[in-house]
Amino acid sequence: MDGITRFAIIGLGLIGSSIARAVATDLPDCPVSGYDADPKVRDTARRLDLCARIDEDPAAAVADADLVILCVPVGAMAAAARAIAPGVRTGTIISDVGSCKSSVVEALQNALPGHVVIPAHPVAGTERSGPEAGFATLFRNRWCILTPPDGTDPANVARLSAFWQALGAQIEVMAPDHHDRVLAVTSHLPHLIAYTIVGTASDLEEVTQSEVIKYSAGGFRDFTRIAASDPTMWRDVFLGNREAVLDMLQRFSEDLSALQRAIRWGKGDELFDLFSRTRDVRRSIVEQGQDDPREDFGRTHD
Amino acid sequence: MDGITRFAIIGLGLIGSSIARAVATDLPDCPVSGYDADPKVRDTARRLDLCARIDEDPAAAVADADLVILCVPVGAMAAAARAIAPGVRTGTIISDVGSCKSSVVEALQNALPGHVVIPAHPVAGTERSGPEAGFATLFRNRWCILTPPDGTDPANVARLSAFWQALGAQIEVMAPDHHDRVLAVTSHLPHLIAYTIVGTASDLEEVTQSEVIKYSAGGFRDFTRIAASDPTMWRDVFLGNREAVLDMLQRFSEDLSALQRAIRWGKGDELFDLFSRTRDVRRSIVEQGQDDPREDFGRTHD
Repeated sequence: MDGITRFAIIGLGLIGSSIARAVATDLPDCPVSGYDADPKVRDTARRLDLCARIDEDPAAAVADADLVILCVPVGAMAAAARAIAPGVRTGTIISDVGSCKSSVVEALQNALPGHVVIPAHPVAGTERSGPEAGFATLFRNRWCILTPPDGTDPANVARLSAFWQALGAQIEVMAPDHHDRVLAVTSHLPHLIAYTIVGTASDLEEVTQSEVIKYSAGGFRDFTRIAASDPTMWRDVFLGNREAVLDMLQRFSEDLSALQRAIRWGKGDELFDLFSRTRDVRRSIVEQGQDDPREDFGRTHD
Repeated sequence: MDGITRFAIIGLGLIGSSIARAVATDLPDCPVSGYDADPKVRDTARRLDLCARIDEDPAAAVADADLVILCVPVGAMAAAARAIAPGVRTGTIISDVGSCKSSVVEALQNALPGHVVIPAHPVAGTERSGPEAGFATLFRNRWCILTPPDGTDPANVARLSAFWQALGAQIEVMAPDHHDRVLAVTSHLPHLIAYTIVGTASDLEEVTQSEVIKYSAGGFRDFTRIAASDPTMWRDVFLGNREAVLDMLQRFSEDLSALQRAIRWGKGDELFDLFSRTRDVRRSIVEQGQDDPREDFGRTHD
């Protein structure tokens, strides 16, 4: 690709290891050097042969990279950026995969003054974590949102875009604060609600945990997938995107109170109207290739 | 099977048509007569060859049945029971598939005094509706909960159990009010929350509908599947199980407020503790065969 052929991945969990695998598949001539702060993860990455090279020192891992991607929880971005700072060459593009962007832009620019920082967020993932959970096709047909700071050289945005496109992603560019509001509703609020309801169901006295699990096919099990996501990652997202999450949560709570009132007072028409409206959203998501077209997510029924 | 070989299905939507298909597969010697209040659905059922016979009159459909299963929205149970009353033979088991049971027990017993009423709830379904959405394996390895009224002949409970087991379901027997509290948390509350968040996301001013759909893979799309469920069915469930739903909703709202406070005040430990706890619930559901063991529900990533 145009000027970027050597990559460094800092953090080799689900996303970092998926990028490494995708590069091996889609850009097989581009060497990847990797680093993870956890020695056990580095060992696993070596065993899985995820990268051309796994370094013991983050600054060494980035030394000859044209593109560095930080794949750590957003609360660890500042520390990761400081750790690579001694090794980063001038002109190297520093990017990341964090789920909130305003706080990450600030953290990366503060830690790496004078460097090319272009934060990014591939909107993709599964409920699993760690280097063994990654796979090469994770980013195919998913969106990757770039949030370049004002004044970023468009040529570098084009280079980073070409990288993600090579991995199968589609690119969108937006301002960090708009990203954070969009993702607050499409990702952060859903996770918060899923974590909450799984907690609520676990704390009941008269309905046992065993009953909750047995009868989860009635809808509850859908929420448990999201609520099995990485706790550190999600703690950091909520703290890193606090304002937008609290605002969306407030709107959700108001809407939930309105439904609560409709149920209490037997207003069936209000319920029916909302439930009819929400069907169309699903249809659009499937039509636009953002979910499996098969019913029930393609779950097996055997 | 022991004494019940002729079935009548009243209501030929997702569940009714799945039962008809499952009987054709699993009990091929047992004839099914069917009826639906909608003439278009009756025509479709004839075209799909769902039943041995589709009647134009509900009382005629049940006339020679050993087991009648009412597969209509819970708010329509009383009317459906009154409609079949002129044709039901003494000794015929009357059952249903409704998602709440206390209100259904009452409706069926009032409409069919002196008859054998054993309500049931197969905890299975998809987001689709109508006679074309059904399939024969829908009930395999799912639970079917029977809620026999006090004084029900155990032999009839055994007959109804054998029927559902023949379709691949596992049987549990419980009191109607306990059923309604268990399902309020494992099914009704999840649906209510999913409908709410999809509504909230649709009503934002500064985040467009198009953005919500594009970036839905971050978690939101999981909720849209449930929120695409049949509006009439779900309106009736919330009105038919009002007390239990409102109680679970109150608990959920309290827990959500606690998380909101933890985010506002930066209490990362509280978030991390909850998010770690909820992981185990997912693991148990998968271990007990109540969800697809593949990551991301087995969605394709190509």
